[in-house]
Amino acid sequence: MKPFFKTQTLEQVHGLARQVEALESESVPLASLLGRTLARDFTAPHDLPGFARSTMDGYSVRGRDTFGAGEGSPGYLTLSGEVTMGEPPGFALEAGCCARIGTGGMLPAGADAVVMVEHTRIVDERTIEVARSVAPGAHVLGPTDDAEKGQVLLEAGRRLRPQDVGLLASLGASGAGVVSRPRVGIISTGDEVVPVSGSPRPGQVRDVNTHTLASQVTAAGAVPVPLGLVPDEEHAIREKVATSLDQCDLTLLSGGSSMGVRDLTVGVFLSFPGSQLLVHGVSVAPGKPFIWVRKDAHALLGLPGQVASCMIAFHLFAEPILERMLGREARSFTRFVRRRAVLTRNVPGVQGRVAYQRVRVREREEGLEAEPVLGKSGLLRTLTRADGLVTVPLGCEGLDEGSVVTVLLFP
Amino acid sequence: MKPFFKTQTLEQVHGLARQVEALESESVPLASLLGRTLARDFTAPHDLPGFARSTMDGYSVRGRDTFGAGEGSPGYLTLSGEVTMGEPPGFALEAGCCARIGTGGMLPAGADAVVMVEHTRIVDERTIEVARSVAPGAHVLGPTDDAEKGQVLLEAGRRLRPQDVGLLASLGASGAGVVSRPRVGIISTGDEVVPVSGSPRPGQVRDVNTHTLASQVTAAGAVPVPLGLVPDEEHAIREKVATSLDQCDLTLLSGGSSMGVRDLTVGVFLSFPGSQLLVHGVSVAPGKPFIWVRKDAHALLGLPGQVASCMIAFHLFAEPILERMLGREARSFTRFVRRRAVLTRNVPGVQGRVAYQRVRVREREEGLEAEPVLGKSGLLRTLTRADGLVTVPLGCEGLDEGSVVTVLLFP
Repeated sequence: MKPFFKTQTLEQVHGLARQVEALESESVPLASLLGRTLARDFTAPHDLPGFARSTMDGYSVRGRDTFGAGEGSPGYLTLSGEVTMGEPPGFALEAGCCARIGTGGMLPAGADAVVMVEHTRIVDERTIEVARSVAPGAHVLGPTDDAEKGQVLLEAGRRLRPQDVGLLASLGASGAGVVSRPRVGIISTGDEVVPVSGSPRPGQVRDVNTHTLASQVTAAGAVPVPLGLVPDEEHAIREKVATSLDQCDLTLLSGGSSMGVRDLTVGVFLSFPGSQLLVHGVSVAPGKPFIWVRKDAHALLGLPGQVASCMIAFHLFAEPILERMLGREARSFTRFVRRRAVLTRNVPGVQGRVAYQRVRVREREEGLEAEPVLGKSGLLRTLTRADGLVTVPLGCEGLDEGSVVTVLLFP
Repeated sequence: MKPFFKTQTLEQVHGLARQVEALESESVPLASLLGRTLARDFTAPHDLPGFARSTMDGYSVRGRDTFGAGEGSPGYLTLSGEVTMGEPPGFALEAGCCARIGTGGMLPAGADAVVMVEHTRIVDERTIEVARSVAPGAHVLGPTDDAEKGQVLLEAGRRLRPQDVGLLASLGASGAGVVSRPRVGIISTGDEVVPVSGSPRPGQVRDVNTHTLASQVTAAGAVPVPLGLVPDEEHAIREKVATSLDQCDLTLLSGGSSMGVRDLTVGVFLSFPGSQLLVHGVSVAPGKPFIWVRKDAHALLGLPGQVASCMIAFHLFAEPILERMLGREARSFTRFVRRRAVLTRNVPGVQGRVAYQRVRVREREEGLEAEPVLGKSGLLRTLTRADGLVTVPLGCEGLDEGSVVTVLLFP
């Protein structure tokens, strides 16, 4: 039943993840666009601002009428009108004239610059003294300075930030087409595991993975669908997986940590017609027993049951697949910040695998310091006490105390 | 009416922000805890895991019974039982015996270590060959290794990450008390501004600030309450501000960009009994016309109307106040990553102010490169094209091409 399968590298898993396709798009209103991925290029439907607009409070002028004006030799212009905010001026500016204008006001025809109010003085009802010359275009936004009709302003695949949402709003879009958020079915297994609400008897522990994974899925921009806890039993697991295949885009099955259950997971995944085993074991620590079975566009993933290993395996393997489903690049640790730090102790490598060591980070005068968090790797506390991870490469016996390393800081 | 008020520095604003108090706490279920701030210390209600637990598949043993065992000189133990997952073993381990155990299984009394299955061989139904000696404690989590009853595991003020949510779950917490999310009233003003759904006539523009600010508020972990658009008119503005005072913890009033409206904003804010002007003008560019009026615990903030300036002013001033309301430190740009980069062009300073220059960032072999984004500062496009900001300090004439600067990368 279980095919012979070679342990793969993380790079090979990324290579497979690159073949995952983005989900369909959906239309989402402005208020919910933050962090979503644009599905199609956004093109300006009209010029923006669409008219010449003042960026200062002052007087709209013809720039050439101010040439030669300065502190010692002011110029004088005839005040011929005032621009009302939000309305086109009902007049054109004649030579030698100026018109009062506020920030954001529309320049009258004939005007091409604005003199700031700070550089002017009211002489009388009809005369303004100008103590500064301005070039045509000064303190003015041109009609197409923010956007030109037909121009591509935001490209497909962009993760929308507040300013991008603002740009859509400025051009009258009530929302945008974005890549749908993947629905992620979360299943915990283990005969020794009880729900959080339960009181574990000796030998039992509570279901932690459902909650850490749901939080990780949310942080990754996907939608967690917790499907509950099942015993290590083929029929029960298969039923849950079938539900997830039906309702979700990706399944995270954690657990199966006890003897023989790993094979059970592969067996259940492959029992669905058309399913294909892509990965069974990766040369990383923790995360080695990772399983990936493809069933149509759905990714069935088996993660280790130990809570700390399960969390790291999520970042290593599930994140790049989710990123692709979201229309982005297949990368691990996408939301982790990378910082250089000096190691305070030796960190051993793991034979034949890339190892991820939890570290605590401290700010020092000289820069960051990374202190390995000791304790058995199954312990959740090694992660709650840690600020990030340090990678020990494949084939490296270990990292020396005092060496400079890159820390992946938890988001 | 308008008091004489000196322009303050950003540090002075931070000093005032440090006096803002955290909001009340509320009880939130596990599924919604990610990113929230813990209101009180979380103490372990019991030991965790609470029993000695195997971290490997193999055989539970008394470590001393394996001493001397090795590849060339295996030891032999009597198989006296098997641990069922999720149940306390119904037997104690006698000297010279071993019991089969899976990862996560509970060690029988008498056992103190686990030999990995890889280092054993089944000789017959009753005999196991052991090819490796194990020290007491090997491959075992002690009863208090993850937590000891009464121990403070998570401290008040911590922003909860997935692993912290997991720790709460592991100890049976169905949720936690966290600091309430600030409700932020958002008001846009401007006679020239129309709603996004409107068709601006010449001289008019759409309301962008409501949407950029709502996105920024959401990203900061607070709740946006968009209150709409009002004309630059005392009565209309006062009514909206009264609504916000009633419903929210903080008000963002953007606009008032046209002549005289800035004073109108201060006047409206100070018209509420007991209100106090804290800030009126800050030595930064953009963001200079910032206004902060305190009315009881509520912060009334006036931001510039220009969309790009408004966004940066949010990060400079609103973010530290919101951080404090969320029980954290008063800092600007909290979610921005800081990276070193080489400038590709000169960046001029702004007389008497700290300036924030938008830059685009490119990865080069040698490291990051920061390219200033040109264009008038009122343009939204300067922000949609930018990846971050570079700070030109007060009193600095400018930053030279080729110099190494810190880029604040947009989150």
